[in-house]
Amino acid sequence: MNPLDHLTHLLSKLPGLGPRSARRAVLFLLKRRETLLLPLAEALSVAAREIKTCAVCGNYATQDPCEICADPLRETGILCVVEDVADLWALERSRAFHGMYHVLGGTLSALEGVRPEDLRVEELRARVAGGAVREVILALSATVEGQTTAHYVMERLSGTGARVTKLAHGLPVGGELDYLDDGTLSAALNARRELT
Amino acid sequence: MNPLDHLTHLLSKLPGLGPRSARRAVLFLLKRRETLLLPLAEALSVAAREIKTCAVCGNYATQDPCEICADPLRETGILCVVEDVADLWALERSRAFHGMYHVLGGTLSALEGVRPEDLRVEELRARVAGGAVREVILALSATVEGQTTAHYVMERLSGTGARVTKLAHGLPVGGELDYLDDGTLSAALNARRELT
Repeated sequence: MNPLDHLTHLLSKLPGLGPRSARRAVLFLLKRRETLLLPLAEALSVAAREIKTCAVCGNYATQDPCEICADPLRETGILCVVEDVADLWALERSRAFHGMYHVLGGTLSALEGVRPEDLRVEELRARVAGGAVREVILALSATVEGQTTAHYVMERLSGTGARVTKLAHGLPVGGELDYLDDGTLSAALNARRELT
Repeated sequence: MNPLDHLTHLLSKLPGLGPRSARRAVLFLLKRRETLLLPLAEALSVAAREIKTCAVCGNYATQDPCEICADPLRETGILCVVEDVADLWALERSRAFHGMYHVLGGTLSALEGVRPEDLRVEELRARVAGGAVREVILALSATVEGQTTAHYVMERLSGTGARVTKLAHGLPVGGELDYLDDGTLSAALNARRELT
């Protein structure tokens, strides 16, 4: 294949880019050879060489253990379980959580053939059974797969003595009532709280 | 900057990708290190090294003159003038044109500071003045900038003896009348043709 078509083909595999936008991206890159094309080629090589998966939590980082696992200021007694590194990054951006993470690497799915042994559940059990963890927060998607996975993880953690919690369901902040789906609405109603 | 943020930053500059989708693309790439991340880094380096601008027409290609300019089967008497390589590729995909091309490299624009000497107009005049070209088709955008550029190019070609034409304006194929803007509608009306 000629180098132009090959590059377009590879770029079109990225999420958010189709064949058309990949073609546009290639032309954009060729016009900016020194400022974008070459730096991007270099950045990809560096990432491939230097980014590792943290053996403790599963995050991507240049060091192992990652910055979060190595940070002495983080609360080690609380462990937040997420499906994916993207979710970990989202939580970090929110600055709402200061404990440790555990990336499962997906959710159980009969349809896509994801079995318990494909996820990092036993590693989680080992971390929690170590004894220093007092609470495990399951921050999994509010989908059938996410909730099935949450249930399975909870069972595997039984007997470790750690408290297992999950994220609250309810109204998204800024969300309008009449745009909400019925599931969220009834979840928010069931989890209603006393005004003080 | 850390390699992850640096890569995300560079990817977010591509058209069609913002900071959010660039982040997704980075995670997507890291999960496919061998099948996508490394091949993409390599393809970008190869492109930077091997893709040249054709000195005759301005197309991007691995050889100079490019495949089109070097093709003995193409009609050398007709020259199609386009703004950009993207437009040349679009015309090639349509398989509607079998002559030669000339990429101007943009359109005249007082706003963006594009002057006549920034475009490859004198190269065009030299090609046409050479004598072998009998028709120049101006395939420029139907915008103010495109039409201003067309007018300027036409003036520069006066005296060369070549016929200068431009693309027809009218109803796009598959277009519905009541969704058309007034400008297109009146252009289509003015350029109406006898049914035979």
